[in-house]
Amino acid sequence: MTTEIPKKQMAQVIEKTGGPLQYKEIDVQQPGPDEILVNVKFSGVCHTDLHALKGDWPLPTKLPLVGGHEGAGVVVARGELIKDLELGDHVGIKWINGSCLACDFCQQSDEPLCAKALLSGYTVDGSFQQYAIAKAAHVARIPKDIDLAGVAPVLCAGITVYKGLKESGAKPGQTVAIVGAGGGLGALAQQYAKAMGLRTIAIDTGYDKRKVCAELGSSAFIDFATSKNVVQEVKEATEDGLGPHAVLLLAVSERPFQQAAEYVRARGSVVCIGLPAGAYLKAPVFDTVIKMITIKGSYVGNRKDSSEALDFYRRGLIKFPYKVVGLSELQSVYELMEKGAIAGRYVVDTSK
Amino acid sequence: MTTEIPKKQMAQVIEKTGGPLQYKEIDVQQPGPDEILVNVKFSGVCHTDLHALKGDWPLPTKLPLVGGHEGAGVVVARGELIKDLELGDHVGIKWINGSCLACDFCQQSDEPLCAKALLSGYTVDGSFQQYAIAKAAHVARIPKDIDLAGVAPVLCAGITVYKGLKESGAKPGQTVAIVGAGGGLGALAQQYAKAMGLRTIAIDTGYDKRKVCAELGSSAFIDFATSKNVVQEVKEATEDGLGPHAVLLLAVSERPFQQAAEYVRARGSVVCIGLPAGAYLKAPVFDTVIKMITIKGSYVGNRKDSSEALDFYRRGLIKFPYKVVGLSELQSVYELMEKGAIAGRYVVDTSK
Amino acid sequence: MTTEIPKKQMAQVIEKTGGPLQYKEIDVQQPGPDEILVNVKFSGVCHTDLHALKGDWPLPTKLPLVGGHEGAGVVVARGELIKDLELGDHVGIKWINGSCLACDFCQQSDEPLCAKALLSGYTVDGSFQQYAIAKAAHVARIPKDIDLAGVAPVLCAGITVYKGLKESGAKPGQTVAIVGAGGGLGALAQQYAKAMGLRTIAIDTGYDKRKVCAELGSSAFIDFATSKNVVQEVKEATEDGLGPHAVLLLAVSERPFQQAAEYVRARGSVVCIGLPAGAYLKAPVFDTVIKMITIKGSYVGNRKDSSEALDFYRRGLIKFPYKVVGLSELQSVYELMEKGAIAGRYVVDTSK
Amino acid sequence: MTTEIPKKQMAQVIEKTGGPLQYKEIDVQQPGPDEILVNVKFSGVCHTDLHALKGDWPLPTKLPLVGGHEGAGVVVARGELIKDLELGDHVGIKWINGSCLACDFCQQSDEPLCAKALLSGYTVDGSFQQYAIAKAAHVARIPKDIDLAGVAPVLCAGITVYKGLKESGAKPGQTVAIVGAGGGLGALAQQYAKAMGLRTIAIDTGYDKRKVCAELGSSAFIDFATSKNVVQEVKEATEDGLGPHAVLLLAVSERPFQQAAEYVRARGSVVCIGLPAGAYLKAPVFDTVIKMITIKGSYVGNRKDSSEALDFYRRGLIKFPYKVVGLSELQSVYELMEKGAIAGRYVVDTSK
Repeated sequence: MTTEIPKKQMAQVIEKTGGPLQYKEIDVQQPGPDEILVNVKFSGVCHTDLHALKGDWPLPTKLPLVGGHEGAGVVVARGELIKDLELGDHVGIKWINGSCLACDFCQQSDEPLCAKALLSGYTVDGSFQQYAIAKAAHVARIPKDIDLAGVAPVLCAGITVYKGLKESGAKPGQTVAIVGAGGGLGALAQQYAKAMGLRTIAIDTGYDKRKVCAELGSSAFIDFATSKNVVQEVKEATEDGLGPHAVLLLAVSERPFQQAAEYVRARGSVVCIGLPAGAYLKAPVFDTVIKMITIKGSYVGNRKDSSEALDFYRRGLIKFPYKVVGLSELQSVYELMEKGAIAGRYVVDTSK
Repeated sequence: MTTEIPKKQMAQVIEKTGGPLQYKEIDVQQPGPDEILVNVKFSGVCHTDLHALKGDWPLPTKLPLVGGHEGAGVVVARGELIKDLELGDHVGIKWINGSCLACDFCQQSDEPLCAKALLSGYTVDGSFQQYAIAKAAHVARIPKDIDLAGVAPVLCAGITVYKGLKESGAKPGQTVAIVGAGGGLGALAQQYAKAMGLRTIAIDTGYDKRKVCAELGSSAFIDFATSKNVVQEVKEATEDGLGPHAVLLLAVSERPFQQAAEYVRARGSVVCIGLPAGAYLKAPVFDTVIKMITIKGSYVGNRKDSSEALDFYRRGLIKFPYKVVGLSELQSVYELMEKGAIAGRYVVDTSK
Repeated sequence: MTTEIPKKQMAQVIEKTGGPLQYKEIDVQQPGPDEILVNVKFSGVCHTDLHALKGDWPLPTKLPLVGGHEGAGVVVARGELIKDLELGDHVGIKWINGSCLACDFCQQSDEPLCAKALLSGYTVDGSFQQYAIAKAAHVARIPKDIDLAGVAPVLCAGITVYKGLKESGAKPGQTVAIVGAGGGLGALAQQYAKAMGLRTIAIDTGYDKRKVCAELGSSAFIDFATSKNVVQEVKEATEDGLGPHAVLLLAVSERPFQQAAEYVRARGSVVCIGLPAGAYLKAPVFDTVIKMITIKGSYVGNRKDSSEALDFYRRGLIKFPYKVVGLSELQSVYELMEKGAIAGRYVVDTSK
Repeated sequence: MTTEIPKKQMAQVIEKTGGPLQYKEIDVQQPGPDEILVNVKFSGVCHTDLHALKGDWPLPTKLPLVGGHEGAGVVVARGELIKDLELGDHVGIKWINGSCLACDFCQQSDEPLCAKALLSGYTVDGSFQQYAIAKAAHVARIPKDIDLAGVAPVLCAGITVYKGLKESGAKPGQTVAIVGAGGGLGALAQQYAKAMGLRTIAIDTGYDKRKVCAELGSSAFIDFATSKNVVQEVKEATEDGLGPHAVLLLAVSERPFQQAAEYVRARGSVVCIGLPAGAYLKAPVFDTVIKMITIKGSYVGNRKDSSEALDFYRRGLIKFPYKVVGLSELQSVYELMEKGAIAGRYVVDTSK
């Protein structure tokens, strides 16, 4: 099978930070001893890809760079050390492309915290190309009964919200408030929460989002823009009025970070996932101490979280609306993204 | 034995918020069915007692009020329901004087979070009197081989720092940074940490405190006032340079709350215990998420924490310098406290 | 309202161990300061009640004894200390009627392990009477939208299997094998598991039980009587062939205790709930160590488990077939029980 | 530096199961891309090595085989992928020589449970040679201030007991009973327990062992051979008479496995580490359920456990008597071992 691998392929390349994106032919790489070559079929487009293009974050990217970190495809070549992946297997390229697997954090299954972690589409080339290199120990194993286009967004967005729900410590039967519930991450979070036996309170704004959240089974919807008292309304949405056991912050503005500490139940946890630029967590010391509240950050997920998140998807418990366009059209997807005009997720087909 | 209980006793009474304190004769109360009457022998004097006198906190106190919540004494009468305490038993009156023992929080052993919790020396009369009422299920059981004067400060300060160390999640062999290590709580925290198999980094200021911390076995002392870079120095004080696994914030100023999030190890926890007036926790969202840091509050301790904290003391692992004066001299203790002139703890002898 | 309480009532009384049961008029008791008087409306009939009547267990019962520990009713009187229950509130009398609420185990929310625990229908009179005494802090709080007949069996059977699932440590998405899945406890266990986001493998025997389990959504049914190799079949019923993450032993024979340790996944847990008379756990040391398997016992549930189990029921996630007969007919229920002729649960109506 | 590696070396080789051991010259191997070559300086001799030689266990060994799995030495060559180990670094070869680092168990840091785990001196050549191959991600990192002879036994025995103590769930201040406390593992266990803030009760037999245990600070010694009632004595050795919070079973006979379940405290855990041939765990179902006891196996330790165990050693908290002899004398060590004539540990010097 390896003979079928072409020497050249099409990719979306960032030559310099800020762009422009160039859709052009580049070389196909060869995997090292611990790597595989993946024929990427589909790749989700995440807001992070746009941040990488624009250079929004303090950490500089590799240049030239092929972006993309939600790539679903097929193994077409493998390094000499790889024994647990066969050519033809389906795999997923995630934000964490590789890690050292030997440091203190890798030893405790916190690969995303590894100081040597490779970031797909950021510090190494990602999935906006037809053939991508990935560390074999890190690619998600995708069972063949899963559709590759549909699973692509799960590889980052799905894993991230699932991990956040795990980190919240909320137990089956308990209630989680989801801030930003009506967006893409929010819709995923509500579905994962339900599959995990959790109840949800949706916090977002607008008629459309209220409708989406009702369909996804949240027990209450609080419109943060029109509510006279978000804190009180969230508390009242729980049966005993003591507030939700956990809060998942998917929002990209700063204010919800402070409110969450006020409406979460005593002994509850506020989990930060969204990354509003330059934002600060802020909470009154007195209340945090007296109510024994926990505020914590959750960052993507490790390999185990990833395989669990995929398994919920495989069982049909997670639905996510997406639209497929050709890889060549990536620039237009970014344009829609900049306008805030995307509901759900765009997925690019690398063959077009 | 109950015949020996006098009708009248001496107490320090606050008639109105702001004071003055009045040392005078008042009635001895009778215990209800689930209560005991304790002949308080010694009571520690805590900064909280001064806050109660001055009305510093949003929550109003009972009035008139007998303060004190570190009372060690002897059971002299008991209600009809009490079967597990005998007259003559030694017990301790703690900040949490009682709780409903039936609500959601009490059911999960979080009695300090009970909405109906009674607070000694704040919402009910406390231990600055010779005979105090307490809920039998809540008093600390004090083995008779423990000296009652020495154990008094453990009943609040000891329990609080021990609980904070438990809440930090730090495991034997790991390192905890203690902010405010040279003060009374800090000295206790270093000793409890050691007894729990933890290593400590002391953060405080001045030659005297440096000396105290060295004697208590902390592996490093960072002087926050003279250090050029506290964050860097704390990290360097850990062997791998990644920072301590947890931070205990005993300080009463706001700034350390922000620095802690910067030097704590990825996946580590920052535990807030001190209550600087009006202070806010503040931490950058980006770093908190990427490093998966936990920030949490810890508030006194439950009954189990209390008995564990006492047991460490009983085994001789915790030493705490204290000075005994008569209950009649309480006003002068407050004056020293206001001047910041107290090292260790003052304990009042109710017989004088 | 208290004026309506009669002086006499009807009850099923055991005068001496072995019986006979006597349905007769006895005095209504008055609650102590920490107790309530419950007008029992319905009471489930559990196998334990029959054991108590016959004296099957090493622990002797109170005599004369009124049995019953799944009593649902209405508060009609309360002791002077009770402030969080009003007359007219609905409550449930459970196996654990009371406990000291002060010992080491009560302090850590393990009330069922309290050496002074009072057992309804065993060491204190239970719910096979119209008016029963219970410790207020221990009765289950039953919201008024729950039907009292239907909830009765949840008060023991439901809580017990729910607690067992919690103790198993199985996480949402993982798989639990349930041994004795087709019986009453097993049917409850499958429903609680599903509500908690768990997958189940049913182990039992016979066509009827296979059908029940399929309807309850178990992914596989292993017939232990006809299977050629139970261990292999259970493992194969999991997707990766490594076996279930946990096993719940509801069976009343000894053999399944040994097999479970063979098919459970490495790092998995085997939770014992059923109490086959004189049975022993047995597992090979070598495999237990090499696979790091946990074997543990789970005994009813604490108060928090109880309120959680009730909440799942209230939300309509737990259905349990039951048949109501008059309290006067209890003897005939025992006769059916002895014949093994009961599917689901019998509930007695104390008014008949 | 790699030029100094010889082509030939001395090793102790097992050509066929049952022996004899042959001390002879063999080739030095070359590391693969993810491997290192270690110049073994010292290697501890463990009972497992003798089992491997004699073929005592169901799992067959590699043949011909170089035994040994407590090897401490220096990195002299490394594969192309290795970036976090330098030539000259000190490392330890452990029982788990390598694992796939990608399976479900490896993903959750349970490398010892990996189905593809390589076992040093059993399924791959071990440390009874001068130059041994090891997977780089798995060797213990040994700081250079640690003596290589002394640390050798920590690499298996130390890690194993430390992990067992972690698995017990015992918290600082709680009590662990150690069965087989006077032997080599037992002496290590008592020291690790102390360093972790735990209290210990020693169970073993004979004057010499009693003396050793007293020196190591155990609060009580129960002689199982002379005690009239081991269960009662162990319980009485705890202050409240309720028994130890955990039991560590290091014994190689079957009986203690049953007794432990009888004296452990309710909610306590019994951790099996020793592997008596063909032994069975046995515990009464009734007591296990009613007391909610946990019985579990613990098998060596993962990489994180290993680095933690080494760190306690490095800090001088763990002392272990050992005697150094030449690698050429390994046969005589086995002879002493067969006679049960070894106290502490023998360590072989590969240069002799």
